Amino acid sequence: MGNADYAYPSGMNVESVHRVAIPPPQPFFKSLKYSMKETFFPDDPFRKFKNQPASKRFMLGLQYFFPIFEWAPKYTLHFLKSDLISGITIASLAIPQGISYAKLANLPPILGLYSSFTPPLIYAMMGSSRDLAVGTVAVGSLLMASMLGRVVNFNENPKLFLHLAFTATFFAGVLQASLGLFRLGFIVDFVSHATIVGFMGGAATVVCLQQLKSILGLEHFTHEADLVSVMRSVFSQTHEWRWESAVLGCCFIFFLLVTRYFSKRQPKFFWVSAMAPLTSVILGSLLVYVTHAEKHGVQVIGNLKKGLNPPSATDLVFVSPYMGTAIKTGFVTGIIALAEGIAVGRSFAMFKNYHIDGNKEMIAIGTMNIFGSFTSCYLTTGPFSRSAVNYNAGCKTAASNIVMAIAVMLTLLFLTPLFHFTPLVVLSAIIVSAMLGLIDYQAAIHLWKIDKFDFLVCFTAYVGVVFGSVEIGLVIAVAVSLLRVLLFIARPRTFLLGNIPNSAVYRNVEQYPNANHIPGILILEIDAPIYFANASYLRERITRWIDEEEDRIKATEQTSLQYVIMDMTAVANIDTSGISMLEECKKTVDRRGLQLALVNPGSEVMKKLNKSKFLDELGQKWIYLTVEEAVGACNFMLHSYKPNPMKDESEGWNNA
Amino acid sequence: MGNADYAYPSGMNVESVHRVAIPPPQPFFKSLKYSMKETFFPDDPFRKFKNQPASKRFMLGLQYFFPIFEWAPKYTLHFLKSDLISGITIASLAIPQGISYAKLANLPPILGLYSSFTPPLIYAMMGSSRDLAVGTVAVGSLLMASMLGRVVNFNENPKLFLHLAFTATFFAGVLQASLGLFRLGFIVDFVSHATIVGFMGGAATVVCLQQLKSILGLEHFTHEADLVSVMRSVFSQTHEWRWESAVLGCCFIFFLLVTRYFSKRQPKFFWVSAMAPLTSVILGSLLVYVTHAEKHGVQVIGNLKKGLNPPSATDLVFVSPYMGTAIKTGFVTGIIALAEGIAVGRSFAMFKNYHIDGNKEMIAIGTMNIFGSFTSCYLTTGPFSRSAVNYNAGCKTAASNIVMAIAVMLTLLFLTPLFHFTPLVVLSAIIVSAMLGLIDYQAAIHLWKIDKFDFLVCFTAYVGVVFGSVEIGLVIAVAVSLLRVLLFIARPRTFLLGNIPNSAVYRNVEQYPNANHIPGILILEIDAPIYFANASYLRERITRWIDEEEDRIKATEQTSLQYVIMDMTAVANIDTSGISMLEECKKTVDRRGLQLALVNPGSEVMKKLNKSKFLDELGQKWIYLTVEEAVGACNFMLHSYKPNPMKDESEGWNNA
Repeated sequence: MGNADYAYPSGMNVESVHRVAIPPPQPFFKSLKYSMKETFFPDDPFRKFKNQPASKRFMLGLQYFFPIFEWAPKYTLHFLKSDLISGITIASLAIPQGISYAKLANLPPILGLYSSFTPPLIYAMMGSSRDLAVGTVAVGSLLMASMLGRVVNFNENPKLFLHLAFTATFFAGVLQASLGLFRLGFIVDFVSHATIVGFMGGAATVVCLQQLKSILGLEHFTHEADLVSVMRSVFSQTHEWRWESAVLGCCFIFFLLVTRYFSKRQPKFFWVSAMAPLTSVILGSLLVYVTHAEKHGVQVIGNLKKGLNPPSATDLVFVSPYMGTAIKTGFVTGIIALAEGIAVGRSFAMFKNYHIDGNKEMIAIGTMNIFGSFTSCYLTTGPFSRSAVNYNAGCKTAASNIVMAIAVMLTLLFLTPLFHFTPLVVLSAIIVSAMLGLIDYQAAIHLWKIDKFDFLVCFTAYVGVVFGSVEIGLVIAVAVSLLRVLLFIARPRTFLLGNIPNSAVYRNVEQYPNANHIPGILILEIDAPIYFANASYLRERITRWIDEEEDRIKATEQTSLQYVIMDMTAVANIDTSGISMLEECKKTVDRRGLQLALVNPGSEVMKKLNKSKFLDELGQKWIYLTVEEAVGACNFMLHSYKPNPMKDESEGWNNA
Repeated sequence: MGNADYAYPSGMNVESVHRVAIPPPQPFFKSLKYSMKETFFPDDPFRKFKNQPASKRFMLGLQYFFPIFEWAPKYTLHFLKSDLISGITIASLAIPQGISYAKLANLPPILGLYSSFTPPLIYAMMGSSRDLAVGTVAVGSLLMASMLGRVVNFNENPKLFLHLAFTATFFAGVLQASLGLFRLGFIVDFVSHATIVGFMGGAATVVCLQQLKSILGLEHFTHEADLVSVMRSVFSQTHEWRWESAVLGCCFIFFLLVTRYFSKRQPKFFWVSAMAPLTSVILGSLLVYVTHAEKHGVQVIGNLKKGLNPPSATDLVFVSPYMGTAIKTGFVTGIIALAEGIAVGRSFAMFKNYHIDGNKEMIAIGTMNIFGSFTSCYLTTGPFSRSAVNYNAGCKTAASNIVMAIAVMLTLLFLTPLFHFTPLVVLSAIIVSAMLGLIDYQAAIHLWKIDKFDFLVCFTAYVGVVFGSVEIGLVIAVAVSLLRVLLFIARPRTFLLGNIPNSAVYRNVEQYPNANHIPGILILEIDAPIYFANASYLRERITRWIDEEEDRIKATEQTSLQYVIMDMTAVANIDTSGISMLEECKKTVDRRGLQLALVNPGSEVMKKLNKSKFLDELGQKWIYLTVEEAVGACNFMLHSYKPNPMKDESEGWNNA
């Protein structure tokens, strides 16, 4: 196969010419199976199972779904020590944050504690990340409040609102687990990093704005979350502002930010910032208890019920019209929570050099939400801030989640009365200080510097969330991201190639301005698959390249154009519209008395060109393995024959 | 720039190494302008205007929007003769077809004649195709009937239905003209050829099914268009079937098909099939007139009003809820009509070797529909069948449309009473015979042979139209087409490269099974831009390639793996997620004690790698212009130094 086995004009260096291979035809079902496998099982999860006895397979399967069976047998006392420290550290963060976020979701504060009890236990058994700390998240909480708030007023019907939150959590879990089970995890990849930066920043801004309510001690507040509504609500009631509350809030925000700054500078003292929220809660509660500030306009949490999570499976609402809302809320919040959880898990796995299976993580997160919805928990995932603390505290395995769950359990059983006097403004300060860390303006600047389109995606997500709503921002950002992909396909780049001096290499003359033009030959490179979406564009663009080249030749009176070489190296695939485009291109080129040659079509392209008979039309001798060989052959013919640029003559060539 | 200007291990053939260029930074607005131009003005319509005096520019502008100013001055008597013949030929087809399609749209039959009068005149002035014959189309008519029929019953409120049809036509025209004006013509490209084949076939099937009503002489018939409803409707009233009508219908269908077959075999006798519909109408009318069959269950057209198009601008409905329906109907039918018109115009332009500007055509078709809606016309475009007849009859310019319009005008003024006795069943026969030509099963077989995915698109469009509705079919087919594009991006192919014997060329070992593996070096090719949608997949896939290679080496005890070379030739672009992916890949490779090298990143990729500092991280010496040079350099180091596969050592290399 190495050397060409068809006739070339004599005298040509046949040694240097290699044939472009047509891959052997494959049975339809074989290639279908292959592409299905690449689409749904790119990580080849069954590799381990091959050639194993049944008992071993069962054990591997169990370990696949419950990684605890993998790490528990190897668990050591040394691990336990590390996990104990990190578990207690994240519990001290989880308790105040849980209460704060539950308030943000317009749910009873105790739900924040419930949600830090059962879900971490389930994740510890099923999750494959060693660093993820499970808990509720601010963005998910806010999103749930705003989406459910549109059909049920939480003040008027708190019970229905609560049940809808459980139902939404249930559907979020079902969606997450199904995505994982059906290997559709790649859907999450369509939420790009740029989208997440803009979206998180926007959501953090919106969440901070919401905190103005408790920081300013306002009684009435808008139910809308966008900037305009909140600002109107705040500044229409300046006479209601409470200075006591505002002063307290600012002090705590300052304290929390200072501890965070300190811990960032001195990573050894990670526990300073991790303990700061709990310290604020204790200090704030003591202050209120001593000064009786609750009677002077400082709102407090009030009674929290003692005891573990009550069952809530029977509370799920499966009747319309509420079920529709719950499904919609569940799906949107579920996807967002999943994107965050997977991204966090992957980042830490990268640091510690172990592997995370995205689809497996989805099953774990989904299951933990389904069981969560049965035990009075709402949406949980792996929040970045808490997982980072977990990582810094030196956690070794998912056992740190178990330690946290036990600490929360003890709190639920014995310590809830202590939170009676905790002022809401402290919770707001905790939220604000956590949220400010999510506004990653440096990442946005980085995006602007490297990729303007990514910045646009990030910016639209931010603006959409801040001025519209969380969903609007997300939908716009995903749409803009997809638009980029479609635009890439619809408007692929085509380049003129030239010869790099002292080499046999042909490259884009825009990138390599010293690349030399070959007289009489136009060499083009197409940089995308040729699909229906770009076939007409490419046809017009190629014609324009030929026009421009002929104009240029006319102006400079060089050798007239004789050959058009198309480098197909970067054309990964082609569809029937693309083949028609090539056929039309061939006709156009023929009509002008030129000759078309293709270089290095890939296996998919070659297969289809062959099946469609375009190969016979063009003549297989006009397909070369490299640009160098194509140019060599053209140059040889150019200088030995000098074909007359008339159609008949050129067709003669074609049929030679 | 040609030769590398940094140090290489001595003894290495420096001559052969070329540096990958980083394109000079471009000002943001310049590159934005460039990509805007490529996106919206790929055909560079302003080229002709450059360096021209103002008067010449005005003339060119006028000619751009009204091509008649371009061809009219050069018009000859010879052209006139050809255009007269073809114009009269298409008029003889347009009159019976117009009446038939108007019946299909549940509109007064006379509208079919009106619609063949003003729109062709406008197109003759503004259109750039010389072969397009303007008229109404079956699919558009059916679609309009079904979409408008959902809000207004044409039997109960024929006037409102008629006015809504005008309004929908107006909005279709506005959409078409705006797409052209705003250079958004590429949206039409997203309706792929495969979609059109399936969609047209489905629509033709549905239209034929509708004809069962008049062919069987049924009084009552379903308003649904899908196969199941029609079959239920037909077979639930077998006792109502009229044999007279059925026999007449079958005879005429047979006659029309035979003439078409004859003309296809003998292209010289194109006029036989072109005249057949009018002949059928005359024969049918005579038959009814002589036998008084209208009194025996054969339905006839009845009275047609004499006179030219009445104005209808004041009939347009701009009040809700009707306006919403009209807009939706207009947009859907407008896009479909546009896709057909542009495709037909382009095909014939390709045959005759002249250029069609898609955006200009859209403006022409849009304007003709806007003016059409003011003069009692409904949706028109350039139907394939009529344009093919026009082409075969030897038309030279758009003047054949003017001839047709004059012929229709004369008919409207003097001949309408002659259609009184025309039996509806003849119209149905005309529709059926036209539609059978649209079911292009050979194209579907061709799609199946060449590209299974295109066949899937075609098949879903067909099934969607036949069992669902015309819109459902269209939406599903476009969604499936887009899914293919997204899937291409989400799951790009990666290949292992090997050396083609007796050459310096490296190609995919799957396509070239004789390509040789290079010991100690893994060469990968990525076949798509690296975007957010595929970054995680590629990371996992590349890791799997390395795993598999190391497993293979372990099994065969060959030279251990030292270098991973990634050929970036086909990576046309990269975004920030893609750069993170590369950074993570580098870390993974480093951690295994291997060295990463990139080959031939394009200008966009190089620019971004440079800005993101990945270039510094990797070291510019690890970026090569060709795989050959990369392999050469790696081989040189492999054999002279034998680096220890430990991380420190490898990092030492990196910083060398």
